[in-house]
Amino acid sequence: MTDDKIRKLLEHVSHGDTTVEEAYEKLKDLPFEDLSHTKIDHHRVLRKGLQEVIFGEGKSISQITDIVRAMREKDLDILVTRVSKEAGNELNVLFPSGTYNTDARCFYIKEDLSIKGKGSILIMSAGTSDIPVAEEAYIASMFFGNKTERLYDVGVAGIHRLFQHLDLIKEARVIIVVAGMEGALPSVVGGMVGIPVIGVPTSIGYGASFGGLTALLAMLNSCSTISVFNIDNGFGAAYFATLINRL
Amino acid sequence: MTDDKIRKLLEHVSHGDTTVEEAYEKLKDLPFEDLSHTKIDHHRVLRKGLQEVIFGEGKSISQITDIVRAMREKDLDILVTRVSKEAGNELNVLFPSGTYNTDARCFYIKEDLSIKGKGSILIMSAGTSDIPVAEEAYIASMFFGNKTERLYDVGVAGIHRLFQHLDLIKEARVIIVVAGMEGALPSVVGGMVGIPVIGVPTSIGYGASFGGLTALLAMLNSCSTISVFNIDNGFGAAYFATLINRL
Amino acid sequence: MTDDKIRKLLEHVSHGDTTVEEAYEKLKDLPFEDLSHTKIDHHRVLRKGLQEVIFGEGKSISQITDIVRAMREKDLDILVTRVSKEAGNELNVLFPSGTYNTDARCFYIKEDLSIKGKGSILIMSAGTSDIPVAEEAYIASMFFGNKTERLYDVGVAGIHRLFQHLDLIKEARVIIVVAGMEGALPSVVGGMVGIPVIGVPTSIGYGASFGGLTALLAMLNSCSTISVFNIDNGFGAAYFATLINRL
Amino acid sequence: MTDDKIRKLLEHVSHGDTTVEEAYEKLKDLPFEDLSHTKIDHHRVLRKGLQEVIFGEGKSISQITDIVRAMREKDLDILVTRVSKEAGNELNVLFPSGTYNTDARCFYIKEDLSIKGKGSILIMSAGTSDIPVAEEAYIASMFFGNKTERLYDVGVAGIHRLFQHLDLIKEARVIIVVAGMEGALPSVVGGMVGIPVIGVPTSIGYGASFGGLTALLAMLNSCSTISVFNIDNGFGAAYFATLINRL
Amino acid sequence: MTDDKIRKLLEHVSHGDTTVEEAYEKLKDLPFEDLSHTKIDHHRVLRKGLQEVIFGEGKSISQITDIVRAMREKDLDILVTRVSKEAGNELNVLFPSGTYNTDARCFYIKEDLSIKGKGSILIMSAGTSDIPVAEEAYIASMFFGNKTERLYDVGVAGIHRLFQHLDLIKEARVIIVVAGMEGALPSVVGGMVGIPVIGVPTSIGYGASFGGLTALLAMLNSCSTISVFNIDNGFGAAYFATLINRL
Amino acid sequence: MTDDKIRKLLEHVSHGDTTVEEAYEKLKDLPFEDLSHTKIDHHRVLRKGLQEVIFGEGKSISQITDIVRAMREKDLDILVTRVSKEAGNELNVLFPSGTYNTDARCFYIKEDLSIKGKGSILIMSAGTSDIPVAEEAYIASMFFGNKTERLYDVGVAGIHRLFQHLDLIKEARVIIVVAGMEGALPSVVGGMVGIPVIGVPTSIGYGASFGGLTALLAMLNSCSTISVFNIDNGFGAAYFATLINRL
Amino acid sequence: MTDDKIRKLLEHVSHGDTTVEEAYEKLKDLPFEDLSHTKIDHHRVLRKGLQEVIFGEGKSISQITDIVRAMREKDLDILVTRVSKEAGNELNVLFPSGTYNTDARCFYIKEDLSIKGKGSILIMSAGTSDIPVAEEAYIASMFFGNKTERLYDVGVAGIHRLFQHLDLIKEARVIIVVAGMEGALPSVVGGMVGIPVIGVPTSIGYGASFGGLTALLAMLNSCSTISVFNIDNGFGAAYFATLINRL
Amino acid sequence: MTDDKIRKLLEHVSHGDTTVEEAYEKLKDLPFEDLSHTKIDHHRVLRKGLQEVIFGEGKSISQITDIVRAMREKDLDILVTRVSKEAGNELNVLFPSGTYNTDARCFYIKEDLSIKGKGSILIMSAGTSDIPVAEEAYIASMFFGNKTERLYDVGVAGIHRLFQHLDLIKEARVIIVVAGMEGALPSVVGGMVGIPVIGVPTSIGYGASFGGLTALLAMLNSCSTISVFNIDNGFGAAYFATLINRL
Repeated sequence: MTDDKIRKLLEHVSHGDTTVEEAYEKLKDLPFEDLSHTKIDHHRVLRKGLQEVIFGEGKSISQITDIVRAMREKDLDILVTRVSKEAGNELNVLFPSGTYNTDARCFYIKEDLSIKGKGSILIMSAGTSDIPVAEEAYIASMFFGNKTERLYDVGVAGIHRLFQHLDLIKEARVIIVVAGMEGALPSVVGGMVGIPVIGVPTSIGYGASFGGLTALLAMLNSCSTISVFNIDNGFGAAYFATLINRL
Repeated sequence: MTDDKIRKLLEHVSHGDTTVEEAYEKLKDLPFEDLSHTKIDHHRVLRKGLQEVIFGEGKSISQITDIVRAMREKDLDILVTRVSKEAGNELNVLFPSGTYNTDARCFYIKEDLSIKGKGSILIMSAGTSDIPVAEEAYIASMFFGNKTERLYDVGVAGIHRLFQHLDLIKEARVIIVVAGMEGALPSVVGGMVGIPVIGVPTSIGYGASFGGLTALLAMLNSCSTISVFNIDNGFGAAYFATLINRL
Repeated sequence: MTDDKIRKLLEHVSHGDTTVEEAYEKLKDLPFEDLSHTKIDHHRVLRKGLQEVIFGEGKSISQITDIVRAMREKDLDILVTRVSKEAGNELNVLFPSGTYNTDARCFYIKEDLSIKGKGSILIMSAGTSDIPVAEEAYIASMFFGNKTERLYDVGVAGIHRLFQHLDLIKEARVIIVVAGMEGALPSVVGGMVGIPVIGVPTSIGYGASFGGLTALLAMLNSCSTISVFNIDNGFGAAYFATLINRL
Repeated sequence: MTDDKIRKLLEHVSHGDTTVEEAYEKLKDLPFEDLSHTKIDHHRVLRKGLQEVIFGEGKSISQITDIVRAMREKDLDILVTRVSKEAGNELNVLFPSGTYNTDARCFYIKEDLSIKGKGSILIMSAGTSDIPVAEEAYIASMFFGNKTERLYDVGVAGIHRLFQHLDLIKEARVIIVVAGMEGALPSVVGGMVGIPVIGVPTSIGYGASFGGLTALLAMLNSCSTISVFNIDNGFGAAYFATLINRL
Repeated sequence: MTDDKIRKLLEHVSHGDTTVEEAYEKLKDLPFEDLSHTKIDHHRVLRKGLQEVIFGEGKSISQITDIVRAMREKDLDILVTRVSKEAGNELNVLFPSGTYNTDARCFYIKEDLSIKGKGSILIMSAGTSDIPVAEEAYIASMFFGNKTERLYDVGVAGIHRLFQHLDLIKEARVIIVVAGMEGALPSVVGGMVGIPVIGVPTSIGYGASFGGLTALLAMLNSCSTISVFNIDNGFGAAYFATLINRL
Repeated sequence: MTDDKIRKLLEHVSHGDTTVEEAYEKLKDLPFEDLSHTKIDHHRVLRKGLQEVIFGEGKSISQITDIVRAMREKDLDILVTRVSKEAGNELNVLFPSGTYNTDARCFYIKEDLSIKGKGSILIMSAGTSDIPVAEEAYIASMFFGNKTERLYDVGVAGIHRLFQHLDLIKEARVIIVVAGMEGALPSVVGGMVGIPVIGVPTSIGYGASFGGLTALLAMLNSCSTISVFNIDNGFGAAYFATLINRL
Repeated sequence: MTDDKIRKLLEHVSHGDTTVEEAYEKLKDLPFEDLSHTKIDHHRVLRKGLQEVIFGEGKSISQITDIVRAMREKDLDILVTRVSKEAGNELNVLFPSGTYNTDARCFYIKEDLSIKGKGSILIMSAGTSDIPVAEEAYIASMFFGNKTERLYDVGVAGIHRLFQHLDLIKEARVIIVVAGMEGALPSVVGGMVGIPVIGVPTSIGYGASFGGLTALLAMLNSCSTISVFNIDNGFGAAYFATLINRL
Repeated sequence: MTDDKIRKLLEHVSHGDTTVEEAYEKLKDLPFEDLSHTKIDHHRVLRKGLQEVIFGEGKSISQITDIVRAMREKDLDILVTRVSKEAGNELNVLFPSGTYNTDARCFYIKEDLSIKGKGSILIMSAGTSDIPVAEEAYIASMFFGNKTERLYDVGVAGIHRLFQHLDLIKEARVIIVVAGMEGALPSVVGGMVGIPVIGVPTSIGYGASFGGLTALLAMLNSCSTISVFNIDNGFGAAYFATLINRL
């Protein structure tokens, strides 16, 4: 119930068009219904832009197809993450205006090409094996309307490669650094720049990498000050970077 | 804002004693203020009975003393858990009507001696070392007005001791079983009765007991169906048993 | 050996129909044989109602079919949990009076439709991915004769959805809250009501959710007082809620 | 060596004032000396503002005193974190213009009172026990020149308290949410707003909280999209929020 | 080189049939060659009886077949553990004198039926799901010539079943108790008898059983004094029980 | 109630000296009372010998003193484990016939010097730091009447020291091997002998030894077949070895 | 940019052939470009020899084939690790000069047969199941031009087998010891020799071996002084041993 | 028994000076006694140089003093690690020729100042808090006669500091890199040089550093190829580097 509706209701009471008891009944459920409508409107504006994102994992191809079709009927842009290759290929056929990115395992239809953030978001990856997570972040960042750059395979074992691209690093407004194994790259990048750096550990590695736990712990203990997301959560980092970039 | 107040406000609007805008302003914050007052009143009745419980850990003696004094001025019963021996002795001197239980590390003043629950709560412990946690549960259960029984040192390594007290076990309405080390007693009790059994692991043990983790995991994996609380959380189990006993 | 049988035996001894030695031999094994028959009868009444529940995991289709057929010959209601889709479909064909629920992975035949508990049990889930575990709890709760309600997809990331259903929450006698990922919903619900809240963590999540460990730990550390079951143990929570609801 | 210096050196070579070999010697060490001076200047501007922060843990009182005295001779503002009460009292006596905050365990001298960030940073805490970590974040945020607000003791077990302060929440540009035990508050806040939310787990809790690990894991698995810092790292979160607030 | 050979060599030296240097060369490698022959002969007697045991995991069907064939040519009894059903069926066809036990996943040929140990070994299992590990222990115990008894499905959730078989328990010389989930049965059995009890945790369980870790930890922390083997190591427990039974 | 008492009771019934109802009342509690008296007598014989052992940890000096005094009045031998140096010194003064062993942290009075086991128990330690746990095992083994030998500081980093004592190793009937750090010694010993080897991990080590967890895991995964006890549980191993040695 | 180029550039400036601004532009990127060319040349010489090693895991057969073909066109030797049997067979057909080692899961083409290290590297394995990791180390060591020996299946459970090969052990310059399960062999070897011993834990084992974690922890806590690599990282150990052997 | 002694014994047999039986008795214990004398002599040469190292942790001041005094009587150099400040001060007084290093917690007397290794060992530390572990490595490296350099406080958060000291890095023969928190520095250094890099994680950090576990895991998963030692094991790394440097 929006503010306008409350005012109108009170006017009806004031004018005797509504009895006190009728108004009371309508107001009784106000606290909770109202919550999403009135109080947190700034949030809703943003969520509106993001609500077309579907987490594809655990959904069947037909479930995904139904959702995409329903949204396309409203001409909404849409992003589906964690889409299997099979589902991606089928979506490509059914919705020719869309794109399936095999690395990122994302399918998206994006017709609104306007840039909404104030600067650019840079997505970095330590190794080539980390690229799928980095690409998920890249697709999501682009989908949310950010100018987005990529700088891949610049891990700390060959630190000179990193320095060859200082310009790109200096130009970003937010940096997302994706790394598996020992997860050291975000620390190095975080020590080089004075802008927010977001670390995303990946499950890349074997043995004592424990499915990304090592990279996660390393980033949480970084002597640089970086913020951290869950293992393989490229999408989350891009969402968060978008919130910063729109400030 | 209670329902009565809302009705009155609407009547004022209806009678023209309050303008629409004034009423709107008062209603604007309704959702959240109202939440605690109106909607969850059943909860409040109970919380009222429990809100005098203070978690003493991390509080100085003078902080605890101030709280107890303030509540005594309103003639409220009070329970303070996790009270050090030093603080307990000082509270005993300052508030002679209260009792400090060294094992349970609890101080309480209880003048309302009425029994509120429908049946009795039985507190069992596996070993003598588990008694402090069991006693915390016992004090809390009593404080909340439950008829409460105790059956200590009946661990599975001497299973015959357990069977010598079947009557006590059969008469309970809810059973709290406190156990450290391998945490097996709740499984055995849970297999013997048809009433809710609540397991509380303790940090008693050494080496691979990992501060109670082993007992906790054992209870969570019980082949009997028992519900589990955090390590050493005797108070929580008693609170939960109270909720059941008052149903 | 029931009490009656013991009395009869003693009478035979008293009348000289049985020698002391014969009676002694029969009594020698009394302690343990007797245990299940006499002493814990209240439990047996309940277990009787529950003993038709079969844990399907690790059993072949033909094993399950044999058990179901045997029980049907005695006209017993039956619930089989953790049944694969293949087995479920075959059971559906063989036992047309039964129902296989794909989400819950449960097959059941329930002809006794009487309500046995005193209030209603509410099953809540945080996300749509948690529904399979919630449905296992729902099917089991229903099967045990409880009035059972459902409230799904009301996780803390959209807390306003939760508040839109306060009535349902307030009407329950016991609430089971199923949640994966950060497992926060039981804490919020536990803080809103004054009745027993049971948390069931699910294995839903990825990366640092560690197969449900994160949700489990979060529930055990809840600042609300909730009791906790093993990861994905929807059945256990329903069994426990049934014990409470029948008190 | 700044760009200007390089240009001047080249001009000297061009004019014959410097020999090739002399210039070569000076340039030889350019790559690394230069790194900190020229290339990452945006960073340095910020670091300049932050380099007066001293991590006090593991340093003796006299070591801390020496550092503070040296910086005061240059009239620099200074913040020392993780300072024991003993050291804090001594610093208070030696440097009367400074302030020691017992909760935050921080000592600071701040004469530059200008506001540098664009909006306000809100520091929230779930429980009263989490306040030390929240205060560390508060002191640091203030020290870095941010308008900073506080909202403490609004944990999810009494969710209505949170909603009573929606205005404060809506007005922030960045929110830091500090929580121990089950670490659920950041998820709830993250679901309510459309701005960056930073979670800081605390080591508050006992038993299966494992020194903050549970809260940390919960935040990493949040179904809201929040970024996470190390356990008890209030300072790091404030530093990161400052970077965002200055964008 | 056996003692006899050393003596003979010395005699050859003494008689001048062998030069000092020749003898020295032969003795040079004595320390290590000798180790297995002379010094630890008691062990060898036993190992001789056990050396025909093959760990089948990771070996191809043809590798296993080759080993079995080679040993059969020497008329040796043989036990192969961890054999897949496919391999087992093939072995059954190729070696009709052998037996493949599907539950235990063991194939064995045993023609020496003499009993070698002094008493009987009792194998107990808590649940029906633990039977494969129990059967591995059973087959191995039998294969090593022990009188072996079985008592399955006597877990602590129905403790009365355990007591119905006290005779069997009292007659054993060594007891192996196999249990998954909370692993409580060995504690109960260990508290009932005055003979060595060996606990074998199984990987049976789900969620917080962590592949048998919970049962393992529970057994290690038993308040009864039991010795523990690795998860699912039924063979190891039987080997160890055999060592005891032959004393 | 012993067997004799049951027979007498039946005779009284047979002779009419006791009514059926009176006998029934006496028999009603038979199952559980009887359990400890009749059924598990073999156990009791052993327990009798062991029941004078007191776990001293967590008990005050006066509590320990009271127990020792009470037992001495019955002329019972007694062993108290985990006794602090302070308590040990006081016990030495109060009970001059007793001995306090500082390394083992055990106090014992032993007047019955008869040897009860059939062979000797050998206690080995890997390093000098493991001696306290080894000594606890040694004292307990001796106290239970076993011929007991010691072989300390023969860890795998200097494997030749181990081989210099093969005679001692070959003569034992049971071997207890105590080792911290990497816990490798039991594997080596287990591979050398054909008798039961019991591994006791110690909490000796630092860093990734995790308080003995590494040694514990190493022993559980031994390629030799050894049985394992909890970290630092020298007493348990000695108790178990005693059970074997008395067979 | 090499030193010579910098000197030449300065000479051009000195002679007026290059303007200051042109020179400045060329020097601007010096720090980072230079890094890889000038400063760490010793490293590059070695990396040159090793850069043909491809980590095959996660790469498709056609990706691997493309890389191998490209390198063969430059006549470079090549090693691909972690190659599936399918890919290996295909590579064997396409590149007949190469070899696929099934155990090691490595494919390599090696035409430069010169020996580059100063001594020999010995690869030891504890069990036959550890051979795949040992063979990866063996192939890599050979590929890098080291004289390489093998000594397999000499685990601590049969320590005499180890001593039968002391000559081989004494002749090595570096020893790599590969072991799963309890990971004890490197400790024993490390105690026997005065040269660098490198431990490689393997994921071989079951239950509480936790995928190699136990072996890893054991090696890290070795009372001998050995250096440790990640679980199953045979290649890394060989690379590291090569660095030592070339010193 | 050395080779010479064996030869002599055989000659005595050959000459009839010793009977076969006498010689046999002497040879019987040969395998194990011989082990330390003959077979592993290269090792002994080194161990001789190292055997004066005492691990001080857990030893009383008087125990340490006794050992030092005994060794000084033989004029042996000596190093005691993990010495408390109190013990260190006392040793300084008693042995004026020795030095106690407070940071390293080491006491040593070193009169043999000859350099034994072929190159220099460089000890690096990431932060100032890691210096105690680095200093332990430094003292040990020096004590073993290596030319040893130090480069402290060059962690990855300020990567430019590292590059300012490339010369030092390039000149080393072996590098030990000590780092806590995220443990990233060894990866960066390992990627820069072509010589053996040894990583030593430290227990420095808080929260999710878990006492050095994070740094340890990071180093084990390094994308550079480095070898790793236990947490805080500066001495072990220095010993290992010495073995390499003496090759």
